[in-house]
Amino acid sequence: MKIALAQLNYHIGNFESNTQKIIDHLQLAKKQGADLVVFAELAVCGYPPRDFLEFEEFTDLCEAAAQQIAAHCQDIACIIGLPVKNTQVAGKDLYNAAYFIEAGKVKAVTKKALLPNYDVFDEYRYFEPATTFECIDFKGVKIALTICEDLWNINTNPLYVANPMDELIKQNPEVMINIAASPFSYCHDEERVVVLADNAKKYNLPLLYVNQVGAQTEIVFDGGSLVFDADGNILDEMPYFKEELRVYEFADGQLQGLQPIQRVQEPDIAQIHDALVLGIKDYFDKSGFKQAVLGLSGGIDSAIVCALACRALGPENVMAVLMPSKYSSDHSIQDAMDLVNNIGCVHEVIAIKDAADAFDSMMAPAFKGLPFNLAEENIQARCRGIVVMAMSNKFGYILLNTSNKSECAVGYGTLYGDMCGAIGVIGDVYKTQIYQLAAYINKDTEVIPENTVVKPPSAELRPGQKDSDSLPDYDTLDKILYQYIELRKSSSAIIAQGYEEALVRRIIKMVNTAEFKRYQTPPILRVSPKAFGMGRRMPLVGKYLS
Amino acid sequence: MKIALAQLNYHIGNFESNTQKIIDHLQLAKKQGADLVVFAELAVCGYPPRDFLEFEEFTDLCEAAAQQIAAHCQDIACIIGLPVKNTQVAGKDLYNAAYFIEAGKVKAVTKKALLPNYDVFDEYRYFEPATTFECIDFKGVKIALTICEDLWNINTNPLYVANPMDELIKQNPEVMINIAASPFSYCHDEERVVVLADNAKKYNLPLLYVNQVGAQTEIVFDGGSLVFDADGNILDEMPYFKEELRVYEFADGQLQGLQPIQRVQEPDIAQIHDALVLGIKDYFDKSGFKQAVLGLSGGIDSAIVCALACRALGPENVMAVLMPSKYSSDHSIQDAMDLVNNIGCVHEVIAIKDAADAFDSMMAPAFKGLPFNLAEENIQARCRGIVVMAMSNKFGYILLNTSNKSECAVGYGTLYGDMCGAIGVIGDVYKTQIYQLAAYINKDTEVIPENTVVKPPSAELRPGQKDSDSLPDYDTLDKILYQYIELRKSSSAIIAQGYEEALVRRIIKMVNTAEFKRYQTPPILRVSPKAFGMGRRMPLVGKYLS
Repeated sequence: MKIALAQLNYHIGNFESNTQKIIDHLQLAKKQGADLVVFAELAVCGYPPRDFLEFEEFTDLCEAAAQQIAAHCQDIACIIGLPVKNTQVAGKDLYNAAYFIEAGKVKAVTKKALLPNYDVFDEYRYFEPATTFECIDFKGVKIALTICEDLWNINTNPLYVANPMDELIKQNPEVMINIAASPFSYCHDEERVVVLADNAKKYNLPLLYVNQVGAQTEIVFDGGSLVFDADGNILDEMPYFKEELRVYEFADGQLQGLQPIQRVQEPDIAQIHDALVLGIKDYFDKSGFKQAVLGLSGGIDSAIVCALACRALGPENVMAVLMPSKYSSDHSIQDAMDLVNNIGCVHEVIAIKDAADAFDSMMAPAFKGLPFNLAEENIQARCRGIVVMAMSNKFGYILLNTSNKSECAVGYGTLYGDMCGAIGVIGDVYKTQIYQLAAYINKDTEVIPENTVVKPPSAELRPGQKDSDSLPDYDTLDKILYQYIELRKSSSAIIAQGYEEALVRRIIKMVNTAEFKRYQTPPILRVSPKAFGMGRRMPLVGKYLS
Repeated sequence: MKIALAQLNYHIGNFESNTQKIIDHLQLAKKQGADLVVFAELAVCGYPPRDFLEFEEFTDLCEAAAQQIAAHCQDIACIIGLPVKNTQVAGKDLYNAAYFIEAGKVKAVTKKALLPNYDVFDEYRYFEPATTFECIDFKGVKIALTICEDLWNINTNPLYVANPMDELIKQNPEVMINIAASPFSYCHDEERVVVLADNAKKYNLPLLYVNQVGAQTEIVFDGGSLVFDADGNILDEMPYFKEELRVYEFADGQLQGLQPIQRVQEPDIAQIHDALVLGIKDYFDKSGFKQAVLGLSGGIDSAIVCALACRALGPENVMAVLMPSKYSSDHSIQDAMDLVNNIGCVHEVIAIKDAADAFDSMMAPAFKGLPFNLAEENIQARCRGIVVMAMSNKFGYILLNTSNKSECAVGYGTLYGDMCGAIGVIGDVYKTQIYQLAAYINKDTEVIPENTVVKPPSAELRPGQKDSDSLPDYDTLDKILYQYIELRKSSSAIIAQGYEEALVRRIIKMVNTAEFKRYQTPPILRVSPKAFGMGRRMPLVGKYLS
């Protein structure tokens, strides 16, 4: 029996394009002799559909799409993920399910039991967990089909009390298939390989695993579908951040003609780079926009975003706006222009002095001669926000936000100023990783100008300002932030690791008092296991930690 | 036996104040002869603690607070809600639980089985559902204690497959106690009374129910704790939007000395008014701020917010900023000043012309003579945003957002302009309800100036602009929005009700294309069953509905 894995990029709720893509790949697989094509979790509607699932019409459209796909399954079978209605009176109205379609008909429905409801996941908001499990018989082969998380409960501190494969194995299946929508983070590919290999070994069965690929607003799926033998050896690994269809021969209880491979672990920063480029590209492609705008300061953050955007959209579709103020250093414009010239994107220079001066005069009576402070600094940042949004509104460009994770964390940014944008490109990338990203982007030729990389970071909102005036060095800052944000360690636990107490308390207080700012920031492309946004839900007026 | 219900206003993660408040009310109840005091769900830490629950230190602090409370339970028992650790290896690490404390010790732990995970609720993100149920014995009385949602599964389309009271009733309890954190919406008090009465009748037991009161950022708890006899008659109803302690005598299987009462249903608009005033007050009190700032346009939305803020904070703590532009009508400033005079708040007049003109000149080369459009309209709104944020930054005022639900819905507002603010006061109040709110506020004396109420709504961003130029009348608009937002009806279902097809499709498209704007708006005080914010999670680049 020939089994094809279709690793595809879906668009949430775009039934027309998803269905067509699935049918095209059924036909492509058929030409390659496949008997069965396996598509990902919730492939019919894309993942995560969120509250679209609360519209009955939406689930009806999923069912209609599945029927349309079924009509193309005359000489080929398929497994396809979609939400299906719960016909029982009690319990939630839907299951996260998969159809096994053969000879034009739905022959079996597999339901997901373990519903991830942590970080960016909200599956128990919509779905009833499955409690019964049944293998699928196809051409004399018994298949144990599971959906994503259903294979992820085998560690020593299991999150769920149930384990679907422990039930399915009693029916003596010959092969495991798992369909997934498993989002990227820079450490997730390694975890995934371990968990899947552990399943193959534990149940002593070959395993075929297919993942989604592509970005859905802030969540990026990386693909990297995998095939294992019954000893947990990797027999094949599909590409990352790309669509792919591959066909495997299964006979006599094993995958034929494949030898164990040694997988090559891509460096984290290369994965992050590719995820961000795909994240930008899919945000634009799927929302029907072509052109981006961003403020280019001469600093490293906006330079990186500009370079990534040019790779995703083409330099001709990226408008960089240089907005010097009276506090901009001489080299800032030069550094920004060097990038524009290196990269070939479109640019405008719009000085903000006149607007900032107008506000200073307008506010003078109300400000009653109080000294220059944060208020005036923020006016400048917000004038820049108005300029780039004006370019966006006039020309239909989409504004890219250039805040990095370190500054998002400590609130080192102006709400409605540099925190504007439709999508946060590097808001999940710490400043120390930003430098690694610059080195990676520059690996073959200089794209990010050297001076941009080597000069001390500054917001340039008052004379001679440097990030290091109010923040510790980024190396220390990022380590403390990682302990607090990614690992959810309390300040006392972080201090116990040897960090200076006053510093830890000051940083964590900064993070918590900036919670209200992050509530209003754009969605941020998620590349770490814990990004700001939907995956991190903190009280705004809570007292603990603040 | 005397049972006290303590309906209190907690502060999330403020262990010091919550613990002190609980101990104070234990002592108050003791003076009134109580044997047992019942506090609400998650009283120790406040509700919803969200991802604070992922910090081990946080749950340790909850336990420490409970032990401190227990030390004060020598001659009095209490029931108190808190998260407790799951000591089993498998399953989530916490339970949403209650301690029954007697003679200074935790004598019983009751765990919640039904975990709400819809709308604003995310309980399955943190908690393992209970699967075993045990009544509590206290002074010879068997008490069936449940936590909030555990009594809410008795309708004809139950959301859960389990029903905790069906298990507890087998142990022959004499009384039911339910501790809750049940948030306000203008229709929730009626639902609550029905569900609780149905439980009393179904199990033929008296029922004591205690709710939280107070606002936690966007979520407002309304109190309204209730006492029922075994026939489902209401014996007592505690006040709404206020703290309260009441003591009841329970003997011979029933509550003594109480007769069934006829509850008086407050009009929706009065409840909304009280919820919004409490929402503002608690936002400021719990974040430690005193003074608010808002832009006052002369229109009805900002007038309402100003009036509510004055009631919550005192007029001396409310700074209204009047920001006329060249498109402001003659009467706008007058209407705004009439309100200021009626209400006695602080005010400033800061014209935005100079800043708007500066931007027009600055943008002219880039705009290349293109005609006036949305870009220039938004510049004005954003100049106002800069002015009010400058007042906020200079003086530490907190900016109140004045967008109503109708305009939030259709995207009739400028991101980083009039959509700025720390908290959205009326973002869950439709425009048609805004007029009802004005009438309610004006019921005794004119607060909102008559001309503000009667003039046609306008954003005044271009000459002679009226809302009705681009929107249908608000009566029709709000009805369509309600079907789509509150009831999750698809456009085809709404059209089938007789609304004009083109209009419905246009409005729903407006709602969906504004999703990216709402993602970046402030938290909105929730007064309806479906508010924008955490309770409504829609894909941003999804295709369905857009």
